[in-house]
Parts: sequence; structure tokens; C-alpha cells
Amino acid sequence: MDDAATAAFLELLRFPSISTEPAHRGDVEACARWVVARFRAMGLEAELCPTAGHPVVWARNAHRPGRRTVMIYGHYDVQPADPLELWEHPPFEPRVRDGVVTARGATDNKGQFFAHMLGIEGALRERGELPVNLIFLVEGEEEVGSPSLVPFLEANRERLRCDVIALSDTGMVARGHPTFSYGLRGLTALELRVTGPATDLHSGIYGGAVANPAMALARLLASLHDEGGRVAVPGFYDGVRAVEPWEREAWSGLPMGEGLLLEMTGAPRLDGEVGFTALERIWARPTAEINGMGSGYQGPGSKTVLPSHAFAKLTFRLVPDQEPAEIQDKVIAHLRARCPASVRLDIERGHSGSPYLVDPRAGFGAAACRALRRTFGGKEPALVREGGSVPIVADFKRILGADALLLGLALPDCRIHAPNENFPLENLEYGARLNRALLEEIAAA
Amino acid sequence: MDDAATAAFLELLRFPSISTEPAHRGDVEACARWVVARFRAMGLEAELCPTAGHPVVWARNAHRPGRRTVMIYGHYDVQPADPLELWEHPPFEPRVRDGVVTARGATDNKGQFFAHMLGIEGALRERGELPVNLIFLVEGEEEVGSPSLVPFLEANRERLRCDVIALSDTGMVARGHPTFSYGLRGLTALELRVTGPATDLHSGIYGGAVANPAMALARLLASLHDEGGRVAVPGFYDGVRAVEPWEREAWSGLPMGEGLLLEMTGAPRLDGEVGFTALERIWARPTAEINGMGSGYQGPGSKTVLPSHAFAKLTFRLVPDQEPAEIQDKVIAHLRARCPASVRLDIERGHSGSPYLVDPRAGFGAAACRALRRTFGGKEPALVREGGSVPIVADFKRILGADALLLGLALPDCRIHAPNENFPLENLEYGARLNRALLEEIAAA
Repeated sequence: MDDAATAAFLELLRFPSISTEPAHRGDVEACARWVVARFRAMGLEAELCPTAGHPVVWARNAHRPGRRTVMIYGHYDVQPADPLELWEHPPFEPRVRDGVVTARGATDNKGQFFAHMLGIEGALRERGELPVNLIFLVEGEEEVGSPSLVPFLEANRERLRCDVIALSDTGMVARGHPTFSYGLRGLTALELRVTGPATDLHSGIYGGAVANPAMALARLLASLHDEGGRVAVPGFYDGVRAVEPWEREAWSGLPMGEGLLLEMTGAPRLDGEVGFTALERIWARPTAEINGMGSGYQGPGSKTVLPSHAFAKLTFRLVPDQEPAEIQDKVIAHLRARCPASVRLDIERGHSGSPYLVDPRAGFGAAACRALRRTFGGKEPALVREGGSVPIVADFKRILGADALLLGLALPDCRIHAPNENFPLENLEYGARLNRALLEEIAAA
Repeated sequence: MDDAATAAFLELLRFPSISTEPAHRGDVEACARWVVARFRAMGLEAELCPTAGHPVVWARNAHRPGRRTVMIYGHYDVQPADPLELWEHPPFEPRVRDGVVTARGATDNKGQFFAHMLGIEGALRERGELPVNLIFLVEGEEEVGSPSLVPFLEANRERLRCDVIALSDTGMVARGHPTFSYGLRGLTALELRVTGPATDLHSGIYGGAVANPAMALARLLASLHDEGGRVAVPGFYDGVRAVEPWEREAWSGLPMGEGLLLEMTGAPRLDGEVGFTALERIWARPTAEINGMGSGYQGPGSKTVLPSHAFAKLTFRLVPDQEPAEIQDKVIAHLRARCPASVRLDIERGHSGSPYLVDPRAGFGAAACRALRRTFGGKEPALVREGGSVPIVADFKRILGADALLLGLALPDCRIHAPNENFPLENLEYGARLNRALLEEIAAA
């Protein structure tokens, strides 16, 4: 990485663009303006687009018919930096040591989107031109859930029309190991409320003759799994794609063993659906989880009440090709069929997100793999999925109709959202080269 | 009831002897002193006994060898009177209308213990003598859980030695219907805590490979009952006495139907152990109840965490001859055997109280029935049990070795602990006559 590029990166990191803190509103906008100016200096058309929240930066080259259109996405906002006392230096005064930059936002996401900017800048400098029609979108609200992004996408479908989207905001399995996150789980949420007596009752005076809603809820929740850890809702697995042999093969070689999972979670032992490895359970199998539940007296000591009601908040992590609305219907039918008439069961449907999968062996997925191989000296990319959701990916697909390629540059020890977040300059260089290779591979795909 | 007795009762009701309110400490003591003075005026030896809390009033006649010793128990403290705005008149300014006295404490317990005082006063006035050795104990902390009573009993075993104890602090099934509460359920408490990961985890990143402690808890709780509503803990029913045919017969005729239970609880439908009526389930069958439980996120909306831990507070209502400590052991063994190795289960043993039963067909129980019959014009007493516990009854049995006869005078609409608490003067008279009949029957038993 040349000194000018490194200096520009450190400039970008000096903006305390903390989107959640109203006091930093000016810093957030200043950061966006810096990005716009940088795009313009590179020779792109760029615009600061106001939203109900923080502005979106939009940029593009001169589009020409007959070429692929590629959107690169990133975000210039960052997490708060506290606890400040755990930082080795002020979080917005970046420090470079042994080729690693430490600062809030270094990896998430400034380092990762700026690498793409550097790639484009380099291509334009060397060739005066890119091999594709480019759109570059950098938002300022990712760390607060992107509330303005969906309205922006909906209002700008034409300006954002593209064939494929690429972003670097996920992880690499190890340093120097190219990684393609080709799948995400979706989710769907339900809240159960079981009501028995009109008020909490004395458990001596009435207990035995009146159903206990907490017990009824426990029985309903227990009915969600069988003894093998499978979700016991009829039809739950109907749409689930089997883990393919090439995926089993690809995952078995990853440096992400069960020992690491035990260490990271502190659980006494791993658990889950029989017949699958831990990675398969997280990446390719759906779940039914209780996120929270409550009933009756929760204070110190005891209180002999028979509670009036009990509730549980559930989410189901979904995998391709499960449909969130169908899963909700099946779970609701399962629970209603098992609920005794001595309590009332109310079920509130919560938010959903669709699971996501790009085939890394064909089309743009295969192009991404070729680009990763070229960038990392021929090393075969790790093909991974993620157990969580990236809501914007589903939004892109829904609103713009385009798949997203998740080509992360975050290292396992990058400390995002934590003190001493860091990013190696090496990855800034990898990212810039990846961007150039990717645009070329997509142009040729 | 003669006017002097009524006037004395109203005097007693004017003391705002609210044991839980420090501001009323002086009123509580003044009330106790009034009771002492009244005992002395009746010709008994009486003493105001200080405790760590409110004083106990102790009184007795001259004891003579060869006679039964009977203790009468009551409490002169009352519940707070709020919400005051729902009272038809100030709660400590008793009002008599249509033979019913309305005031805080009218039924609970001033009316009921004062009736016994009137009975003794009448017998002494007419005959100069009682048929038994009498001890009369009136405490001032019943409404706050009697914290000083056990130490008092333990420190005064000799002065309190007796053959049997009688108290009126329970209910009558209907006006004019004599009622003997010959059994109480006991209870034993356990708190379960299930711990999985060291902290709450992201349910996307880890969900599926790590046990969810809330789900593990739900499965443990669900394992406590079988499909028929029976407690599924091995050996749980080993000590349980069957409901006897005479009890089924006695209870089936009581004016306490299932419609009333539905109305009082507001439950959609009654429920419970198959093969038993609602009254049998409450009075003669043990239960396993969740009094409270909690895990994870309980605020508004959703939060996709896999919780670190989950807890449940349980109580088991017990019936003769179940032993609380044995039941705890059995439940703990049942749960430990079912707990997966992927979570840690911690169980805290809570408080216990033994179940209680006096045979109403023999001994002092039969004497109580004869006294009730004589008092209420030959009407057959309702033989009932109670689903709750009266902790002092177990304390009496444990410390003094004497059974207690629960001969309540509270009517179903007496509104204890609520605004406009009331007690009919008729029951003051019934209670006084009951006391005289009871002492005579016990003397002759």
C-alpha cells in the first residue's frame, strides 16, 4: 500500500462518525462529505444524498450499454468507542504498528469499503476506465440498523439498478485465507402468551384445579423439539436444502473446530440436531430458539402464586428454501393443536428475514471465487455460510432484484465493536486487488 | 350478643393494630394491652410478653392436675386498610348495620378470637370455672408471617404445654353452616437455574450448536407432569393417603361447585389430575407448580439472543403423609437424570411445611365435631380441608407436639384483607357458644 493511500485511510478513520450518538451528527456528515470528495477526486460522479437520518453517499462512473452493472456497498458509520479506558490510544487517533492500523472503524467498515475505493482508484489511474458500470453506495446508518436504507433503495430503484452487488463486511476464516460467505440464514419471530386465571392466584387455595400457564407454556415449548434435537413441527423441514457433499467437504477443512466454539461460548458442551457437525448446525440447519421468557414472580426468595400468564419470545433461524410466513403458519398450527383448553394461547407474529444463498460454483458466485483466487495467490477460497442474517442483503434482493457477494476482509482477531479494533494494511491491499479482480471477472462472466 | 359484649368488640376494632406499619407500633401495643386488661378483668392471669417484634398476649386460668389443657390461639394484628377510598366508612370506626359489623379486622382475626374470649368470660361468669386448663395465646404478627412466634414457642415450651390447640381463623362454607377444616396441604420449594453459555450469545452466530438453557428448562419443567396431569416424578405419590370414601361423600355435598371455582379464578376451564374432582385436587392431591420463571430478553419487541441462563421457582403442595425433604430428593433426582450435559443445572432447596390432618371421626377431632353440632343447632358440620398451609399449625405440632383444631368463623363474603371487611354479630355469638361447647367436649373426650 503506498503512503498516500495509507494516509488517506488514516484521515478517514479520524472522523468519529458514530451514527447512534446525536452529538456526533456533524462528524458523521463530515465523514460522508470526505467520501464524496474522494470519489470526485477519483473522477466519479458522486452525490451526498440526504435521508431521514444520516446521508447516503452515491457514486458512479460513466455507464455504458452492454456492460455489467456492479454495485459496491459499504458503510462509513461506526460503533461507539466506549469503554474508552480499554483502548491503548484514543480510538479516533489511528495508530499503525507492525503494519496493523488500530482505530474504531478500522475493519468495520472503513477499511473494507475504502479498499474497494482504492481498487477503483487504481484501475482508473492505470487504465482510465473500469470494466463494468459501477455504482458505489456508502451508507451512514448500518450500525443503527439501516433505517433509512430501505426507503432510499425504494426511492432510487432506477439509479441503483444493477446486475450484482458486492460488499466486504464479513469475516475471513484466517489471515491470508480468502473467504466467500455464500449463504446466510433467515429468521422469523413469534411471541407466545399463555393466559390462565384472570389474576395471579394463591397456589394453595387453587393449585391443582386450575392450569398453571407457566407449566402449559413449558409443555408447548418442550414440544418444539424431539429427543434428537430436531424441530418437531410438522413440515418444518419441507423446504430445507440438504447440505451438499461439496459443502461438507469444504467445511470439514476449515480452521473452525468444535474446540474453538466451546471456548468462544463457554458452554459446558456443544449440542444440537443429531447427524450434523456444529458448523452444519449453525450454517445449514434451521433452529427454534427461545430468546426470552417470563412468568409469575421473578424476585428474590419465593412467592406461592399460580401465575395469571406466561410468555415466550421465539425466533426460528431459517435456511434455503424455507419461507418465513409458511414456517410461522406451521409453528402456530403445531402449538394451537397442543394447547389445552384450560388456558388461552395468543400468538403474535414478529419480523422475518429470508434465508440467502448464492451458488459459489456458477455465475457471479464462481466469478467471485476466481477473483478471490487471483487476489490471494491462487489459494482456494474458504466457502462458508453465516448463521446470522445480513438484513440488507435480503433488502437488496427484494428491492433491486440483485444477489450480493459477501467477500469479507475482517480477520478473526479484528475486535470489531470492541476496544482496539484493528485492520492490517495488508488487507487494505488485498481488498483493493480483490476489487479489481472482481470487476474484471464479473465483466467476463 | 349482649350490648356490653358488642360494645367491647367495637372497642377492640378501634385499635388500628396494623402490624406491618411502623407508624402504628404504638397502636399495636395499645391493642395488646387492651386484650391483657380484658383477660384480667375476666379473672385470668395474663401477661404482655415482649418479643423482637410486637408483643404476644398470654393468659391462663388456674391449672389443676387431671384436666385436659387446651390452648386457644388468635391474633390481634390486622392487615393495612388501604385502599381507603373503597371503604364505606373509616376502617377503624366500626359500623353496625343489620347485625353486621364492618371494620378492618372484624373477621381477621379480632371477631374470631374475641368470640372465644366471650365464651370463656360467659363460662367463668356463670360457673366460676372452666372445664379445662386453659392457655390463651394472642399474637401481634400473624399478618407479617409470625416471625416472633416460633422463638416465643421455643422459649416457652413449659408455659405452653397443652393437649390440643383450637383456633378460629379459617372459613365457613356458608352462613350458619358449621365448618371443620381438618386438613391442610404442606409445601416444599425448589429453585432451578439452568446455565448454558457464559454470556448471552447471538442466536444467529451460535444458534443450533449450543443448547438453549431456556429450552432445556422448559423440557425439564414439562417432564414434571404426565399427560394425565399427574406428577411424573418417580415415587412422588408414595406417601399420599387416598381420599377416603367418607371424604368423597362429605365433599360432594358441599356448596363449593366447579362453577364457583371458574367464577373466582377467571380461568377458561378447570384442569388438573385425572380421576379427581376439583375439590379433591385442591384439598387431597399434591401438585407441582411453577410460581415464576425467567430467561433472556423480556422487554418489548425482540432481541435475538441465545440466553446464558434460565430459572424457575417451583413449589410442590403436599398432602399427608408426604415428607417435604423426601419429595425434594425425589424431584432433584428426577430433574438431574433428565438434564442434558450441555447445560448445568443448579437446584436450591427452599422452605418447607408439612401437610396436616386431624381425624374428624376420632379423639379431639370428633370432640370438635360434637361441639360444632351443639353450637349450630344439630347441623352436621362441613368437613373440609384447605389447599393452602397455615404455617403456625405445623409449628405448634413440631414445637409443642399438639394438634390444632381449625374451627373457622369467616363467611365467604367477609372480605378479609379487602375494603369493607365485615363480621356478623351472629358469628360472635356462635363463636362464644362454640368455645364453651368445645371446652366441655374436650374435657369429656
